[in-house]
Amino acid sequence: MLKELDADSWVSERRSSLDDVSAPVRDIIENVRNNGDSALYEYAKKFDKIDLEDICVSREEIDSAYEEADGRLVEFLIEAEARISEFHELQKREDLWLREVQPGIVLGVKTTPLERIGCYVPGGRASYPSTALMTAVPARVAGVSEICACTPPPGNPLTIVAFDIAGVDEIYRVGGAQAIAAMALGTESIKPVQKIVGPGNTFVTAAKMMLRDYAEIDFPAGPSEIGIIADDSAVPEFLAADILAQAEHDPNSACVLITTDRGTAEATIAELKAKAGISPRKEIIFAALENSGYIIADDLADAVSLSDMIAPEHLSIQVRDPMSVLNRVRNAGSIFVGPNTPVACGDYASGTNHVLPTAGYARVYSGLNVSHFCKTSTVQMIDREGLTEISDIVINLAEAEGLHAHADSVRERLKLRK
Amino acid sequence: MLKELDADSWVSERRSSLDDVSAPVRDIIENVRNNGDSALYEYAKKFDKIDLEDICVSREEIDSAYEEADGRLVEFLIEAEARISEFHELQKREDLWLREVQPGIVLGVKTTPLERIGCYVPGGRASYPSTALMTAVPARVAGVSEICACTPPPGNPLTIVAFDIAGVDEIYRVGGAQAIAAMALGTESIKPVQKIVGPGNTFVTAAKMMLRDYAEIDFPAGPSEIGIIADDSAVPEFLAADILAQAEHDPNSACVLITTDRGTAEATIAELKAKAGISPRKEIIFAALENSGYIIADDLADAVSLSDMIAPEHLSIQVRDPMSVLNRVRNAGSIFVGPNTPVACGDYASGTNHVLPTAGYARVYSGLNVSHFCKTSTVQMIDREGLTEISDIVINLAEAEGLHAHADSVRERLKLRK
Repeated sequence: MLKELDADSWVSERRSSLDDVSAPVRDIIENVRNNGDSALYEYAKKFDKIDLEDICVSREEIDSAYEEADGRLVEFLIEAEARISEFHELQKREDLWLREVQPGIVLGVKTTPLERIGCYVPGGRASYPSTALMTAVPARVAGVSEICACTPPPGNPLTIVAFDIAGVDEIYRVGGAQAIAAMALGTESIKPVQKIVGPGNTFVTAAKMMLRDYAEIDFPAGPSEIGIIADDSAVPEFLAADILAQAEHDPNSACVLITTDRGTAEATIAELKAKAGISPRKEIIFAALENSGYIIADDLADAVSLSDMIAPEHLSIQVRDPMSVLNRVRNAGSIFVGPNTPVACGDYASGTNHVLPTAGYARVYSGLNVSHFCKTSTVQMIDREGLTEISDIVINLAEAEGLHAHADSVRERLKLRK
Repeated sequence: MLKELDADSWVSERRSSLDDVSAPVRDIIENVRNNGDSALYEYAKKFDKIDLEDICVSREEIDSAYEEADGRLVEFLIEAEARISEFHELQKREDLWLREVQPGIVLGVKTTPLERIGCYVPGGRASYPSTALMTAVPARVAGVSEICACTPPPGNPLTIVAFDIAGVDEIYRVGGAQAIAAMALGTESIKPVQKIVGPGNTFVTAAKMMLRDYAEIDFPAGPSEIGIIADDSAVPEFLAADILAQAEHDPNSACVLITTDRGTAEATIAELKAKAGISPRKEIIFAALENSGYIIADDLADAVSLSDMIAPEHLSIQVRDPMSVLNRVRNAGSIFVGPNTPVACGDYASGTNHVLPTAGYARVYSGLNVSHFCKTSTVQMIDREGLTEISDIVINLAEAEGLHAHADSVRERLKLRK
């Protein structure tokens, strides 16, 4: 059950080395590079035990996936998609803004979507139609023209439906490192993409890291985590429920309860003891709880510092005044404020994205959002008045750097003699 | 002199392979990893022919760099810094925005700066104090607490002054791949950074790409480029001046003139013939013009399509109605609109950043900006009303994915029975 933890060592233990898989992943990449589609069929047989007829999921197959799926779940996916779209629309920036910073000098930024991206949705221990929404919706909202998606064969019907609801243009039955290689390098069936997003196991993550020269990625992501900041006002039943929800994801998932109140930690552990054993996923939960623990903080400021060191993928704030804690937090993938905001809401339906950096990467990376699918160009528009105003700086700094033709390009406009 | 070009083949030729340098760069990285500072002193001696006493530039040395530098140039750097700061301040997003998307469901985004970043400024063929400003100012504007900078020994005084003006906290005399390794991995003197930005030669770029697991980077950047879209209203003298300014950077620089008017191309070539030979950097210019050329476009729409294929680092628009061309452009690092906006202005003083993606990478990457030094956390705050509203979706999708404890974490709040 939860043990007392040290924040520092916890983070270093979360970074799983990709070295163990780098040799097989390199082989997979080379096979896909050299043999294209035929390597994908080979791996479907080898890893997924399936003799595929076609890696591409046809329109007819998408339509039958709708028929096969529970109609009520399809409705829920449509509703979830609408909520996720709504929040991601709020993130969009104007296509072009321009500002006259001084007479004759107009500066601005133009934002344009990427042209073609790839979503990866794992099969693995469960099927994840929610992840199909989370990876594809921000790309569609950003305005990406071609969204391609891969998921391991045979392809879960609800996942295929979710891709379709999200607006994916092409769906392929390809899993693992071979899916990443196919989207990054291209095959006969799959055109290469500019960026690949979505979670996966260490093979998928290693392939994403190795192929960044070909296709940019969102960020490295590993097993799921929760950090909770709680004071003595927190409800131990809620804390335990959120910990169990995180723990059931994967044996390598981890949970850290940071609390100013030892009694709250003890009551939460008692609650976990009572409930962990009755879950249908209890083996996974018990394994994940081995990676988990609690930390007693001196006060809430200390709790935030500890949490910032850990930079949890999900941070739940269950204290009397959660806004004051929110204001101090620096490092977290997604933040859940108050007792009635279980992480599960963000996983499915509040509208925020659940593709988030883990293992301390939230110190550097943002969770998946619309800006992952856009790039910006700066813009400047200068007239003779503006050019005259800055000509001295440009000419002199250019000459100081030995770039005389730079200086001349200004002189030529103003017909200045050297 | 400029030859007629094909846009497609041009792009593939711009991506210089990093394979040639990967073995020596790997050795440098391992040496820095294993031997820390002593490897840095060793390389200063070997590559820069300098017996360094200290890799760290002291406050006293910064002060004497100010004294050594031309006072007028220091004033110009201060003025350029103010303009760059002003434009980058306009890019900042609010620290936290929250929106009630429906009763009881508040969503938002919290933006926080990175904690520690590294700037690299090359020495090479020229000294680049302007690049010191361009790399450090966006980080300072973003609110980064610790900005560290490396530049090859002995360290150009004006570059050191520029780092100081920009608000850099630590300056080190380290160049090349070893500087990237030191900032990514850390040594006795240099604490590791979260992200490394700034241009460099193939050694520097290869090291940045190899060390992305340790420190994120801005983007791969190679030799400088200009694309120009011109119609028959363009002034050939201005076109030639901008081409020469680009060509003087590096023998591998490249310039592409895309014009709807063959006469404009011919007049520009005549102008280049007249002027290229009288430049003090003529060897570099002639070499760069070998990589350069012109394309005759059917019309301006075709010109924009060709330019988008090339995705030039700098795009100059010199046509009758430049705004209509600007509105169509998708792929370019920085866009210079109209006849009186030479690229040189953006290199030094308009306020936009000159650290930009090259070799077609502008299709995927943004030029350096404030968001490179920030990350975001999504925020959600739900009350019982909001939770009740979305509980059906969350519970049902969670159960469909086999994640029962996720469903329970909602039920527990609402005290719903299964």
